[in-house]
Amino acid sequence: MSQVEALPGREVEIAELTRHRVLVSWAAQAGLKHTVIDHAEGSYLYTPDGRRILDFSSGLICVNVGHNHPKVVEAIRRQAGRVTYVTPNFATDVRAQLADALSRVSPRGALVKTLFTSGGAEANENAIKIARLYTGRHKVLASYRSYHGATLGAMTLSGDQRRLAVEPGISGVVHFFTPYPYRSPFGVPPEQETEAALKHLEDVLLYEGPENVAAIFLEPVIGSGGLIVPPDGYLRGVREVCTRHGILMVLDEVMTGFGRTGRWFAAEHWDVVPDMITFAKGVTSGYVPLGGVMMSQPIARYFDEHVFWGGLTYSGHPLACAAGLANLEVYEEQGLVERAARMEVAMREKLGRLAERHPVVGDVRGKGMFWGIELVADRKTREPWVPWNTKGPGRMKELLGQLAARDVYVYGRWNLLYVAPPLTASEAELDEGVSGIDSALAAVA
Amino acid sequence: MSQVEALPGREVEIAELTRHRVLVSWAAQAGLKHTVIDHAEGSYLYTPDGRRILDFSSGLICVNVGHNHPKVVEAIRRQAGRVTYVTPNFATDVRAQLADALSRVSPRGALVKTLFTSGGAEANENAIKIARLYTGRHKVLASYRSYHGATLGAMTLSGDQRRLAVEPGISGVVHFFTPYPYRSPFGVPPEQETEAALKHLEDVLLYEGPENVAAIFLEPVIGSGGLIVPPDGYLRGVREVCTRHGILMVLDEVMTGFGRTGRWFAAEHWDVVPDMITFAKGVTSGYVPLGGVMMSQPIARYFDEHVFWGGLTYSGHPLACAAGLANLEVYEEQGLVERAARMEVAMREKLGRLAERHPVVGDVRGKGMFWGIELVADRKTREPWVPWNTKGPGRMKELLGQLAARDVYVYGRWNLLYVAPPLTASEAELDEGVSGIDSALAAVA
Ligand SMILES: Cc1ncc(COP(=O)(O)O)c(C=O)c1O
Ligand SMILES: Cc1ncc(COP(=O)(O)O)c(C=O)c1O
Repeated sequence: MSQVEALPGREVEIAELTRHRVLVSWAAQAGLKHTVIDHAEGSYLYTPDGRRILDFSSGLICVNVGHNHPKVVEAIRRQAGRVTYVTPNFATDVRAQLADALSRVSPRGALVKTLFTSGGAEANENAIKIARLYTGRHKVLASYRSYHGATLGAMTLSGDQRRLAVEPGISGVVHFFTPYPYRSPFGVPPEQETEAALKHLEDVLLYEGPENVAAIFLEPVIGSGGLIVPPDGYLRGVREVCTRHGILMVLDEVMTGFGRTGRWFAAEHWDVVPDMITFAKGVTSGYVPLGGVMMSQPIARYFDEHVFWGGLTYSGHPLACAAGLANLEVYEEQGLVERAARMEVAMREKLGRLAERHPVVGDVRGKGMFWGIELVADRKTREPWVPWNTKGPGRMKELLGQLAARDVYVYGRWNLLYVAPPLTASEAELDEGVSGIDSALAAVA
Repeated sequence: MSQVEALPGREVEIAELTRHRVLVSWAAQAGLKHTVIDHAEGSYLYTPDGRRILDFSSGLICVNVGHNHPKVVEAIRRQAGRVTYVTPNFATDVRAQLADALSRVSPRGALVKTLFTSGGAEANENAIKIARLYTGRHKVLASYRSYHGATLGAMTLSGDQRRLAVEPGISGVVHFFTPYPYRSPFGVPPEQETEAALKHLEDVLLYEGPENVAAIFLEPVIGSGGLIVPPDGYLRGVREVCTRHGILMVLDEVMTGFGRTGRWFAAEHWDVVPDMITFAKGVTSGYVPLGGVMMSQPIARYFDEHVFWGGLTYSGHPLACAAGLANLEVYEEQGLVERAARMEVAMREKLGRLAERHPVVGDVRGKGMFWGIELVADRKTREPWVPWNTKGPGRMKELLGQLAARDVYVYGRWNLLYVAPPLTASEAELDEGVSGIDSALAAVA
C-alpha cells in the first residue's frame, strides 16, 4: 500500500545527517547507530535498501493498529484538506466526536469529559493540576516502579531512575512500593502480596497525612518499569483506600490503554473505575501526537464554575483528533480489543516456550498483547541479568544488537524485554518475533 | 481548495457535544460559547453553515503559512502513506532533513543540533534540563512578563499569572524585570530603559550568585505577556552578561520564530546568537504538533559523551517533521520571511490609524507581522483598560465578542489585542481585520 518506493543508497547520507543534526532521547550520542526507516506497513519497518524489520514492540508500544493502516491514513488525508488546526476555543466535529467516543469506551462509561494534550507527559502534568485544583490538596503519590513522562512534573512523579539526574523537580511528590509478585518489595510470598502492598500504602498515607494527598497515580499494569501485572485485589484495594480518604485515583493508561491488555483500558480487568485516566500512544497509534486526561462527572462539574489553569496550543488538535477517531473505529470494526484478549493464550504459550529453552528467562508475564520477559543471571536467586538502575544498558545492549541483526526490533531496558506487537499481528509474525528472540538469547548465552 | 463541503445544521449538535465532553484550556467551562469550525482556507475559518471568520491571530499565533496550504497538505498526505511513526532511535529522512534545514536558518547557522518535541512547553522543559546538565548549575532566570508553557517546569519558568494558581512548581526559578518602554518597571524614560534593565539583571545575578545560574530564558519579543519589543541594545547586553558569567542564553522563539517578526528568528534583529532556541508553532504552522530545542555546537558536543536525560515518545515524529520540512520550503519559496518584514510598514500604518481614531488605544507596537494594541482607560495616566492579572477577562471579553460578531477572530488578553495574521495575508485581508477592530472598538467605547 505504501506509495513511495524504497530508495537504496540514501541510508548512509541520512544516518550521517542524523548524527550531526539530531539529539536523540535518553542517550549519549557518540555510540548511537542510526538505522534509517523509509516506510512501514503492518508489523514491519522497511529501510531504504529494502531490509524488512519486524516491529515487535509497536514502536514505543504505541502503534496498536499497525503501521500504515489504510483507514487511519485516509482519515488523516481527508482532515488535512479540511482544517488541521484551530485554537482550543473553537469547536470541531472531530474533537467533539472523539471525546464522545472516549467517554463511551471509558470504564463503565464513567469518565465523561476529556482534556486533550499532545502526549503522555503532558497528560499527567494536567492530571496533577486537575487533582490539586479539585481537591485543594497538594501531595501526589506514585509508584517507585512508575514512568509518567519526562517534563519536570511528570518526571518527578515517575519513580523511574530517569528522574535522578534531573532532580529536584516539583515538590509534594511521594513514592511508595507497589506489588511485584516475582520480587516482592515486602518480602512476602505471592499470595500475600496484595495485602502487604495495601498495608504499606496505608502506612505511607498515615505518615504523609491522607488529608494532604490530592491523588494516587498508578499504571494499572506497570509498563517500562518492568511490565508488572498487579495481583488480583490490589487495584480494587487502592480504589477503596482512595475513596475512604477522598483521594483521587488516577490511572496512567498511556501504555496500557486502547486494547493493549485485551480490554479498552486495563482498569477493566479488575472492574475498577478511577477518577481520571491519562492516555496517549494507542489513542492514535502514534500516527499524530495526541494524549489527554479523561475525568469523572464530579471533576468535570467542578470546572464548570472554576477556571481550569492549564492548556496548550495544540489541545484538541483537529488532525490528531481525526486520527484518534479513525483509530477508535478500527479498534471496533476489526474487533482488535477482543483479538488482543484472545491472543493472550498464544502469547503466553509462545513466550513460555522461551522460558523452557533458556535458563536466562526468569519470568514471563503479561496480559493481552502486552508481555514482559524478565532475564536473570540465576533462576534460583533470581539475580537480575542486568541490575536495575545501573549506569548504561550493560548486556541488554548486546542482546538488542543480536535482535537487530535478526531484523527484529524489541524494546528492552535493564533485564526486561517488552514484547508488544501491533494488535493486528498475525500468528506467523508472532512466531517470527519469538524465534528471533530465541536465537538472540542463544547468541548471548 | 477544501475538499469537504460545509455541512449546515451540524453546528448545534457539535457545540452541544463539545460542551458535554471536552474540557477547554484556561477557562471555567460554564460560560463558554463554542463556535464550530468546519474547514479553513488561507486567512479564513468557515463554520458548518458557511459563516466566514477572518483568523486575524493565525490561531494562537502559529498558522504562519495560512490554513490549508496545498504544499503542506500534500506533504502530510504523502508522508501519511509512508510512515507516520517510528521510535526516536530509528532515523528518518524527514527528521534528518528538517534538523539540517533548521540549523541552516538558525542565527548565523550557529545552532547545529535539534531535539524535537511535540510543542513549546516540552521544548522549554527540555531546555531547562539541557542547561542544568550542561552547566552543572541549578538556577534558571526568566522575565515576569514571560509565558513558556503550562507543564509544571515551563509554568514555573513563566512569570505569567497562569502560574499563580498551580504553585509551587519546580525549585530554582527566579524572575526578574525586562524592558517595557511604554510602562518602564524601572521608572525611567524610554531612552534609559536598556541601561536600567541591564543594571537590574546584574543586580539580581549578584544576589542570586551568577555561578549558580544555568540559563537566562527570554522571549526576544515578548508574546502573550504583552507584545513587548525590547529597546535596541537590550538583547545584546544580556548576551554579554551571559557570556561573562558562563550562563546559557536561551531564547524562546515559540511565538516569534519562522518569519513572524520579519526574520527567521527575532534574535536576528539585533544580531544575537543565543546558546539555545526553543521553538514550536510556526515550524509546522500548527498543521501537526511539533516543537524543539536547537543548540550550539559546544552543547551538542557535551551530549556526545554524556547521557541526555530527556525524551518523549513522539520526539522527531515523522509526520510532524514532514509537515515542518514542507513549511520551511513554503517560507523560502514564497519569500514569506521577507514579506513579513516588508509588511511591517503597512501594519504600523493601518494599526496606527486606529490609534488616531480611538482614545482607548494607548500604544501600538510590533515587528514584521506581530503586533500588539495596548488599550488604556486614560491616555495620559496610561491606566490599563483592563488591569493585568485581575480575575476574569473583564471588558476584554466584551471586545472579543464584538469582534466575533463582525466575523473577526483576534487573540486578546487583559488590555492587549494581538494582531498576527498569516504571513500570507493580503492587504485587503489586513484592511478587513483592521476595520473589524475599528468598528468593535467604537462599539465598546
Ligand atoms: C505509562 C506512561 N506514561 C507516560 C508516558 C509519557 O508519554 P510521552 O512519551 O508521550 O510523553 C509513557 C511513555 O512511554 C508511559 O509509558
Ligand atoms: C513564547 C511561548 N513559549 C511557549 C509556549 C508554549 O507552547 P505550547 O502551547 O505549544 O506548549 C507558548 C504558547 O503560546 C509561547 O507563546
